[in-house]
Amino acid sequence: MLTRIDHVGIACRDLAKAIAFYESTFGLQVVSREENAGQGVREAMLRVADAPAGTSYVQLLEPLGPNTPVGRFLARHGEGVHHIGYGVTDITAALASIGATGVRLIDARPRHGSMGASIAFLHPADVGGVLTELVQSAPADPG
Amino acid sequence: MLTRIDHVGIACRDLAKAIAFYESTFGLQVVSREENAGQGVREAMLRVADAPAGTSYVQLLEPLGPNTPVGRFLARHGEGVHHIGYGVTDITAALASIGATGVRLIDARPRHGSMGASIAFLHPADVGGVLTELVQSAPADPG
Repeated sequence: MLTRIDHVGIACRDLAKAIAFYESTFGLQVVSREENAGQGVREAMLRVADAPAGTSYVQLLEPLGPNTPVGRFLARHGEGVHHIGYGVTDITAALASIGATGVRLIDARPRHGSMGASIAFLHPADVGGVLTELVQSAPADPG
Repeated sequence: MLTRIDHVGIACRDLAKAIAFYESTFGLQVVSREENAGQGVREAMLRVADAPAGTSYVQLLEPLGPNTPVGRFLARHGEGVHHIGYGVTDITAALASIGATGVRLIDARPRHGSMGASIAFLHPADVGGVLTELVQSAPADPG
């Protein structure tokens, strides 16, 4: 069901500083920047590797304010890993299958994520303390 | 420098239970089990995906006792993501390059990790709160 580790989502206080760090220390490059008001984050995707099943990224997340999911995470835990995103080929089927095992779905239906993907989160209390995201990438540009 | 997300290291209290969960919920399969007395863990590697640059895994970690790194992590944080491992092709060169940027190396020299890999950890306080591991996979069996 899982096709790859799509991304590691990392909460940071200062996106520009975090990007500069990952670029200069590990040689990663930003391939997308977005602001997602619905999720209360400003984010950057840095490509780690390409593979047949899709690309893997480090996703850096800066909250738009303290009263957002990532803002509350930073207040409680400080900077660090916020969630793990796994690639799937059919997110609707994956949600149905996982939901049937009793894992609570934060998103019962897929919603819009980074770079045009369809995403859904699973409840961390049901996934061994890991906030887990499923990611079905946007179809490749047919042009 | 980074070739892939090699693995997500997840701390759990009960390895057998965590393995059963990842197998039944996400369809992952265990490809290796080890006990590493030096690191104080009993662990399993579950394959997520194969790619030209190497395989990506979920690594489940159960501490051998409370006075181990993962035991102390569980006491402080509960179950969840413990570290992120990134693949590199030349771990000695990567450590030299990263160390030169000022990031403190927990392991100045590579040591033995899971599945015959050479590994080294970087200090989380210098990597935005993320305990970060570099992994140079063991050479493929020439047979």
